[in-house]
Amino acid sequence: MGGRKIQHVTVIGVGLLGGSAALAIKAYDPSVRVAGVGRRQSSLDSALDVGAIDTAHLDAAEAAGRSDLVILATPVGAFEQYLRAIAPVLRKGGKHSRALVTDVGSTKSETVRLAERILGRGGAFVGSHPMAGSEQKGVSFARADLFAGATCIITPTRHSPASATSRIEAFWKMLGMRTVRMSPGAHDRAVARVSHLPHVLAGLLMLLPSKGDLDVSATGFRDATRLAGGDPEMWRDILLTNRKAVLSALDAFATDMVELRELVNRGDGPAIEKFLSAAKKRRDSTIARVIVDRRMAAE
Amino acid sequence: MGGRKIQHVTVIGVGLLGGSAALAIKAYDPSVRVAGVGRRQSSLDSALDVGAIDTAHLDAAEAAGRSDLVILATPVGAFEQYLRAIAPVLRKGGKHSRALVTDVGSTKSETVRLAERILGRGGAFVGSHPMAGSEQKGVSFARADLFAGATCIITPTRHSPASATSRIEAFWKMLGMRTVRMSPGAHDRAVARVSHLPHVLAGLLMLLPSKGDLDVSATGFRDATRLAGGDPEMWRDILLTNRKAVLSALDAFATDMVELRELVNRGDGPAIEKFLSAAKKRRDSTIARVIVDRRMAAE
Repeated sequence: MGGRKIQHVTVIGVGLLGGSAALAIKAYDPSVRVAGVGRRQSSLDSALDVGAIDTAHLDAAEAAGRSDLVILATPVGAFEQYLRAIAPVLRKGGKHSRALVTDVGSTKSETVRLAERILGRGGAFVGSHPMAGSEQKGVSFARADLFAGATCIITPTRHSPASATSRIEAFWKMLGMRTVRMSPGAHDRAVARVSHLPHVLAGLLMLLPSKGDLDVSATGFRDATRLAGGDPEMWRDILLTNRKAVLSALDAFATDMVELRELVNRGDGPAIEKFLSAAKKRRDSTIARVIVDRRMAAE
Repeated sequence: MGGRKIQHVTVIGVGLLGGSAALAIKAYDPSVRVAGVGRRQSSLDSALDVGAIDTAHLDAAEAAGRSDLVILATPVGAFEQYLRAIAPVLRKGGKHSRALVTDVGSTKSETVRLAERILGRGGAFVGSHPMAGSEQKGVSFARADLFAGATCIITPTRHSPASATSRIEAFWKMLGMRTVRMSPGAHDRAVARVSHLPHVLAGLLMLLPSKGDLDVSATGFRDATRLAGGDPEMWRDILLTNRKAVLSALDAFATDMVELRELVNRGDGPAIEKFLSAAKKRRDSTIARVIVDRRMAAE
């Protein structure tokens, strides 16, 4: 990786993602010192126990002042307070030596805008969205190989120094990820459609049937509602911070649903079959193939 | 099973479900003769090859005249022609000796009405929906244990002779299934919500994102769209024959979606979290448990 070698990392939020990033860093280079920041001493103690972090801090500024890299890994709703806490203490310096800040959040426009405003444009923030995770929560499920083989979307803006973008990219590659660059807006529109909308639909689907209906449900329903098992607090923040793209995805979906309803209502067999065939063809030719190509965990 | 022992069965449509029923019958009692009926000699030849059927017929009446039980296992859209073909030749007789007719279709009101009209009320038709299957198609994927441990919904009406209902129920139990009785209407409303609506949503979801969006999709999207991989011809028939209940499920879903959209639009964090928590709680307490209780394959 170009620039100063990463020797000290602060991970803010030592849950599944933060804990896994910490473990992965230490697996790659045991000499790197990892400081963990959290709200509760108990979570920090668990992170110390599994060897994810070397030091534990309830105060983010205390840890971040010494770091080459700070990773925000709390729910997105807590980013602002932590960015304000670390902004005054981050190491300045030349383009290769200043401290870098990134995150692992699932929405990017609002986060990137916030971070650039608080840390200062031309600052060292570059957003990341490692597409890995699971329904499990907490550092006890963290794994050094959680990110290995999965995709990380990096979302630089016109304000991002090229050197910072390259260093963040190199960091995720070091942890075994494939990286893709997208603008924060393009990222948010894409994940609204392939992740946030499906999540909302799964929740609605889960709540619609009666108790008796559920009694005759089978694996199709189980799979269609799997996303509804996700962490409510995390998903609340995702929907709130990607509101515009989620609303646009919901509206596009509602429009398509009205059209499909009309086909069913008028009993248009050929048009219904055409719709079903198009969906099947697209799934068979893309999803099945994409998933075989790379190991990707739940977003 | 009460009444005449089943010694001769006709299976109309020797695909995954028909073929599996035939194999299961022969596994239970190799002395039962199974006649297979199909449109294409090649499918019948495959069914003969795997030992699912003893004789192959392009003419349903030729086979059904000798049968104690006829199972309709084609797509629902083909039921009418076959019911008309077999009606004149079915063995009459006392309540314990007349021929029974059932089906394995995923929608029941229209099928049951059709069968009772064509075969005559007081006739020997009782509808069945074995909740088993897969995305695979054709007799080469048929298995004698496809139905074992899964649920079969039996849909008698006030016209169904009690003896016929019991004998059909005993038949599926013989193949290892758990049976549940529901009216055709109650069945259709329930499966519209736990099976047909999820199928339609999966198709719409699959077609919404751009090619580029799909490139950043992960396992959440894969699972949420799994149902879109189903057979278009079969699902066309399901949607057409369960139109009323599907429309009602779509409308209820659209109403809930509008409410949720409003929560997102006004950024109501607590209400969004309440919705997500309710969905998660319901899924964790029902689906996870139900699926552990019994092995259920895709509907």
